[in-house]
Amino acid sequence: MASEKIPYKTYLEEKEMPLRWYNVRADMKNKPAPLLNPGTLKPMTVDELSAVFCRELAEQELDDTTPYFDIPDEIRDFYRMYRPSPLVRAYFLEKALGTPAHVYYKFEGNNTSGSHKLNSAIAQAYYAKKQGLRGVTTETGAGQWGTALSMACSYFGLDCKVFMVKVSYEQKPFRREVMRTYGADVTPSPSMTTNIGRKINEEFPGTGGSLGCAISEAVEAAVGSDGYRYVLGSVLSQVLLHQSVIGLETKAAFDKIGVKPDVIIGCAGGGSNLGGLIAPFAGEMLRGENQYRIIAVEPASCPSLTRGRYVYDFCDTGKVCPLAKMYTLGHDFIPSPNHAGGLRYHGMSSVVTQLYDDGYIEATSVEQNDVFDAAVRFARVEGILPAPESSHAIKVAMDEALKCKETGEEKNIVFGLTGTGYFDLVAYQKFNDGALSDYVPTDEDLARGFATIPEVNP
Amino acid sequence: MASEKIPYKTYLEEKEMPLRWYNVRADMKNKPAPLLNPGTLKPMTVDELSAVFCRELAEQELDDTTPYFDIPDEIRDFYRMYRPSPLVRAYFLEKALGTPAHVYYKFEGNNTSGSHKLNSAIAQAYYAKKQGLRGVTTETGAGQWGTALSMACSYFGLDCKVFMVKVSYEQKPFRREVMRTYGADVTPSPSMTTNIGRKINEEFPGTGGSLGCAISEAVEAAVGSDGYRYVLGSVLSQVLLHQSVIGLETKAAFDKIGVKPDVIIGCAGGGSNLGGLIAPFAGEMLRGENQYRIIAVEPASCPSLTRGRYVYDFCDTGKVCPLAKMYTLGHDFIPSPNHAGGLRYHGMSSVVTQLYDDGYIEATSVEQNDVFDAAVRFARVEGILPAPESSHAIKVAMDEALKCKETGEEKNIVFGLTGTGYFDLVAYQKFNDGALSDYVPTDEDLARGFATIPEVNP
Repeated sequence: MASEKIPYKTYLEEKEMPLRWYNVRADMKNKPAPLLNPGTLKPMTVDELSAVFCRELAEQELDDTTPYFDIPDEIRDFYRMYRPSPLVRAYFLEKALGTPAHVYYKFEGNNTSGSHKLNSAIAQAYYAKKQGLRGVTTETGAGQWGTALSMACSYFGLDCKVFMVKVSYEQKPFRREVMRTYGADVTPSPSMTTNIGRKINEEFPGTGGSLGCAISEAVEAAVGSDGYRYVLGSVLSQVLLHQSVIGLETKAAFDKIGVKPDVIIGCAGGGSNLGGLIAPFAGEMLRGENQYRIIAVEPASCPSLTRGRYVYDFCDTGKVCPLAKMYTLGHDFIPSPNHAGGLRYHGMSSVVTQLYDDGYIEATSVEQNDVFDAAVRFARVEGILPAPESSHAIKVAMDEALKCKETGEEKNIVFGLTGTGYFDLVAYQKFNDGALSDYVPTDEDLARGFATIPEVNP
Repeated sequence: MASEKIPYKTYLEEKEMPLRWYNVRADMKNKPAPLLNPGTLKPMTVDELSAVFCRELAEQELDDTTPYFDIPDEIRDFYRMYRPSPLVRAYFLEKALGTPAHVYYKFEGNNTSGSHKLNSAIAQAYYAKKQGLRGVTTETGAGQWGTALSMACSYFGLDCKVFMVKVSYEQKPFRREVMRTYGADVTPSPSMTTNIGRKINEEFPGTGGSLGCAISEAVEAAVGSDGYRYVLGSVLSQVLLHQSVIGLETKAAFDKIGVKPDVIIGCAGGGSNLGGLIAPFAGEMLRGENQYRIIAVEPASCPSLTRGRYVYDFCDTGKVCPLAKMYTLGHDFIPSPNHAGGLRYHGMSSVVTQLYDDGYIEATSVEQNDVFDAAVRFARVEGILPAPESSHAIKVAMDEALKCKETGEEKNIVFGLTGTGYFDLVAYQKFNDGALSDYVPTDEDLARGFATIPEVNP
């Protein structure tokens, strides 16, 4: 293996790091449908959005024509703390699978938040600071976003209030401690500190919570406090814009080693990692310059793309956020306590949604035990303990590599290894004990979620 | 900051990675004192050592004249999985401290074992495999060595039996799960599965254990099983040989950016990280080519260099291992449950010991709350949650940088950031709650340990 020309890890030099984020919407003919004001059902304006989000983020959210945004110096400085992330050639995995495919992964886990989430967290904290805010509120599922935001807020001296999905809060006690170490307040959601939290606790006693519910609580807490805004770690187009740094680095690294990827695979919860990873590649497809096969992988327990509906829906359980047109399972869909907490969102980024609907992206879903089996096999040969979320992509990348073994094709496969599983050991323990359950919602389960979709749709 | 010439992170290219380990003993005029057979009190031979260790490792252990050992291809392949590790310029820390000093750290935490321990684990597993063994046994304190060995054994298909110091086993339940994920057996020590474990449990009911005791259990388990040998993650000269890869990479990275470090700082438990980090620099000092200031940092709760005696002592509580001449607190010294589990060893590498005695190394000790205070400050500006062990070095590096602030000196300071603290959140939680205690043994505490030192010494 030592004689291979392509290095195990390709790092860009600092001067090769992206100077601008790429806004894939600028190249989309079919733009994502606009966010709607939940009161008027008319498209949200920047002014309306600015009541919830920082002003510059609201502008980014609604801008579907500007192709590039300069990355402010302060953010580029921070990126140098943990970026560029490596593009890794998975030689060990290839050997273990006996595949002729060349497998790569973009590894975003080498920072203390443990995932790619920091890329957008630092951007959102920067704009909040620039606007002179006291702090921000947010929700977190697996805890990766909350940790990332805590780090970012600590860096800029901002208050950080995190509502953490209760099931993750209980499964990941140490996540809370990392956030506290970075100075954040962490509250399990649904909590008794907000109206929506109290209402959900009353309606569903003992619920493990959901991202949709935690979002509502965080928005309520922001709107009700002076000098605070709400920030979100996924789903939004502004987040995909910031996360384009993943794809831009990936593209630059592939160019550096002279490789063109054939298949690009990412796990998909709200779409932040997938949307960021594929951005420049999808741009080339949209502009007719190149072809790639792009696969979104979601958990069978929360299958918004593969079994959801493409309609307007609320982004949150409490209906306080704008409506988005997206693949959704219904805003009241509360998935089973799947351990991939970051993939338990009922909806999907409207950008990813539109690209999927237009045929640029395929989607597939995988079950939890298969995912952990792939995770353990990967960990043993590649030496990285992956997050369960990331392992959805690993599972499908391995499947694709094994197909190449059958056909003899030397495809270049790349997947997003979004994060590490150091805080997912409860789930790993269950898997190691053979006590992890698969769960696939029945059609009746889904029907209950769909019944909550509002009548906004034609 | 963006305009600085020296990058935030310096990575060697794969072709620049070391091809050979460096054996600093070859350049030492005063060689480390030989290991003694506990039965005959005569220097151990390779044959005798081979009953406990793999043969090639026994040879490395006793070789104090060969300056370089080729790193076998299989190990170099594995190193490419997670190496080269970055040499990081701590721009953010410098800014926070307002120091004119240039602070660097060699970061060894970007692998799933979370520390530098993997460098020697993979080497020891390789030689065990080459010898045709079925498996290996070991002890682990904080769990970093056990995790590293589990990964290495999994890679080569070897059985791995780990005795984990009970206090760490209880504080770090997830460490066990990582080891299990890599297929290892993990037993809290002292256990009831060995003679020495049963004896210690009887004498000290409820003891949290110690590395010295876990070593005895692991040796007993190896010697009593067919096809097994014992491996150790620190203290031994073979381990320092393998860990020289840290120092060689550090030296190469400094040469690449044209910088000569003035002060080199490492935490010191058994000496594996410190010995590895300083190896090529100490070599230059020994050969009279260069001068560096080298500082070993140990916890005030387990101060073998700063308050111990330089005498022959047993390496383990059960007296089954050879005797080593080293700075020691006595093999029965059981430190308080300090959270830096990896620094709780009663003795010190005989190489580090001799270099210290000959004046090439300074030593200092620091208290736990100061260490965690430094850890949190570091985490908030540099974005890495450090292991408590590593944070001993951070604390002293920050102190040295602050001294430069007073004097205006632009010293180049480098420290070994040996690992991450993802599995140390119980300790961080205590610190965050203000419930972490400092503990410094009294002279009477030390006297009890010294009383157990055998009569071998002149």
